[in-house]
This record gives sequence, C-alpha cells and structure tokens, in this order.
Amino acid sequence: MYGYPDSVARLIEEFRKLPGIGEKTAERLVLHLLKASENDSLKLAGAIAGLKKNTRMCSKCFALTDQDICRICSSEKRDRKTICVVERPADMASIEKSSSYSGLYHILQGAISPMDGIGPAELRIRELFRRIPDEKIEEVIIATGTSVEGEATASFIAENLKKMFNGLKISRIASGIPMGGDLKYFDQVTLKRAMEKRYDFK
Amino acid sequence: MYGYPDSVARLIEEFRKLPGIGEKTAERLVLHLLKASENDSLKLAGAIAGLKKNTRMCSKCFALTDQDICRICSSEKRDRKTICVVERPADMASIEKSSSYSGLYHILQGAISPMDGIGPAELRIRELFRRIPDEKIEEVIIATGTSVEGEATASFIAENLKKMFNGLKISRIASGIPMGGDLKYFDQVTLKRAMEKRYDFK
Repeated sequence: MYGYPDSVARLIEEFRKLPGIGEKTAERLVLHLLKASENDSLKLAGAIAGLKKNTRMCSKCFALTDQDICRICSSEKRDRKTICVVERPADMASIEKSSSYSGLYHILQGAISPMDGIGPAELRIRELFRRIPDEKIEEVIIATGTSVEGEATASFIAENLKKMFNGLKISRIASGIPMGGDLKYFDQVTLKRAMEKRYDFK
Repeated sequence: MYGYPDSVARLIEEFRKLPGIGEKTAERLVLHLLKASENDSLKLAGAIAGLKKNTRMCSKCFALTDQDICRICSSEKRDRKTICVVERPADMASIEKSSSYSGLYHILQGAISPMDGIGPAELRIRELFRRIPDEKIEEVIIATGTSVEGEATASFIAENLKKMFNGLKISRIASGIPMGGDLKYFDQVTLKRAMEKRYDFK
C-alpha cells in the first residue's frame, strides 16, 4: 500500500478499524510507533492482547472488572446502602472522576430503546431489582442520560421500584444548564427543565 | 483508575502515549476493543508487536521496508533513471498515492534545520550523491517541503548536485496555489511564488 511495506500497511489497516481513526491518523500513529522504543510498542501490544482476556463484568453491579467482584463492590470504604444506576461503564467512570459519590453502582449496559429492539429484559434491570432487598439498599440514584432513551429508562425503573419497595428512596440526578454554560447556547428543552427544577437560593 | 480495572486502565494509559490521543479518545478506543471480537484485538496487538521487528530502512533509498531492498528499489516496472528526493516516508507515501510518479525515491529522513542541530551530515544526503553515478541517474526531482527547512535542503542539494555532476537534470516540484484553493485563503508568500512561477496557458 502506497510504497509502505506489509508490516506498516497491516498496522495502518488495523488502526483504521478503530472508531474515529481515519487513514491519516492511522498513518501518523504507525510512524510514531516506528520511532518509539520497542518496549513501548510491546507494552501497547500486550495491553491490547490482554484486554479481553482479563476483563469481565462484575457479577453484582456489571461494572468492568478483572476479578469476579469489582473493586467498588468489594470495597469497605463505600457507602453500601446506596446504588447509582448508570447506562454504561464510561458513565460510571465519569462519576468516579467527579469524586462526588461514594456509594455502589449498577451498570444497566444501555438504555431502553424500542427502535433498536432493546427493552427492559435486554438490560440488567431485573438484577437491579434483586439487589434492593438482597443488599438492604436504602437509596437508588438514577443517573441514566437525559436523552429520550435515558429518560424513559429512568421512568421505567423509578415506577417499578416505587411499586415494589415501600420506603426506598429514589432520586434522579439533576439536569439543567451545565457549569460554565452560557444560557444562549442551550436548547429550549434544557432551559425549560432548568427553570422547572429551580431551587431556593440560600 | 476511575473505577476501571487494571486491564482497562493500563490500555487507556498506553493509548494516551500515542500522538493526538487524549484521555477521552483512549477511553473510547478501549471500550470499543472490549466490544470488538477477540480476533480483531489479537490482530491489532500482533501488528503492533511485529511492526518494529519487521520494519527497517531500505539500504538503497531509506524507505520503510520489510526486506533489505524495498519493493520500489527492486521493481522492474519503475523508471530507474529518476530519483525523487523527499524528507520522510509519509511524503513518499503521498506521492505514491497520487500515482503521478513512477521512478525511484530517496528518503532523506528530515530536512536541514540548524536550530534543531540537523545539518547535511545528519541526513542521507551523502548516500544520495553516491547513488547518482552508481545507478547512472539522469534526473533528480527535489520534493522536499516548502517550509524554510525544506527550501534550504532543496537549495543545498541542488547546488551540490550541479557542481558534482555535469549534465544531470535537477528539478524542483512546483509550488503555488493547491488545487481547489480559493486565492483569498492563501498567504502572500504562496501567492507571490504562484505568480512568479506562472506558465503559459496552452
């Protein structure tokens, strides 16, 4: 390909299969790796090869883990009475980065989306319901996205939890104008929601 | 890191070492690989691990190759009387993609840049000079970049070739307004050069 030897062309092709990586970027990555130390390349190759072998889903919360039970589910330091429900592992990582939460998680593995054939049964919702009595959970924070699917999933879970568990506290993360946001850049739905959810200034 | 297991965190770290890949992109790539087939991951890992082992510089033209002599240098189909001089392997790949050239190449491995401590001796210029009589070269096309360094390298090579080899044809790739370019977007130096190098309309 374009005068490159097979060893180079093959890696360009493999990189191009990754999301958001086009031909130019793939070429740049390969030329970088050629200049980088052999050790760095081997570390990258090893981490990729080991990724799927060493990563599975936590059997309690369905987070990514390299053990049977993830670090958060088995930690003594977390508040074990609260579960934060998110759609995907990356959402959980974002909340962890914010250091704003110290309870447990439950990763649904997506959101209800009839258009894509994803109903409640395709997600880890049943497993969530089972955890409430099993682990004597006191609060469930629903932190699915604010997309149509995320909102529908939040409503579905909240309504069912309410029916099933008397006295369980159920909350939804706040939505509104993001911090640092200039009002004029946000859509009407966001502004309407921010207005409705306004709170008293202390 | 952020509730990710080591197997995931380690690969995020390794991806972040690559140029132009930040934390968010690295995270996205890893989550993609977790969903992709094991076979795809192993192919990527193998291509990375084999890259440096299987790639070297052609001992004639210094292109990337997986043999001692690269495919172009050993091809019967190329015009063996012409050498196109470029700075880097990626430049050669761009010319090959354009299908506008069928001769040989010589990859300098950079451009003269006194600020970075790169003089003619740090580049493969001596090897180029040696190839002219050895391979009975008739034309050298200098296709270094149009940066200050690329222009200086082109002048240095052209002047020396002129002194050393009587009758050798020496040319420089044209510079001017790129195709599809709107004049108003180009700088004065480009416009001045395009004006100077104007040619008769046939």
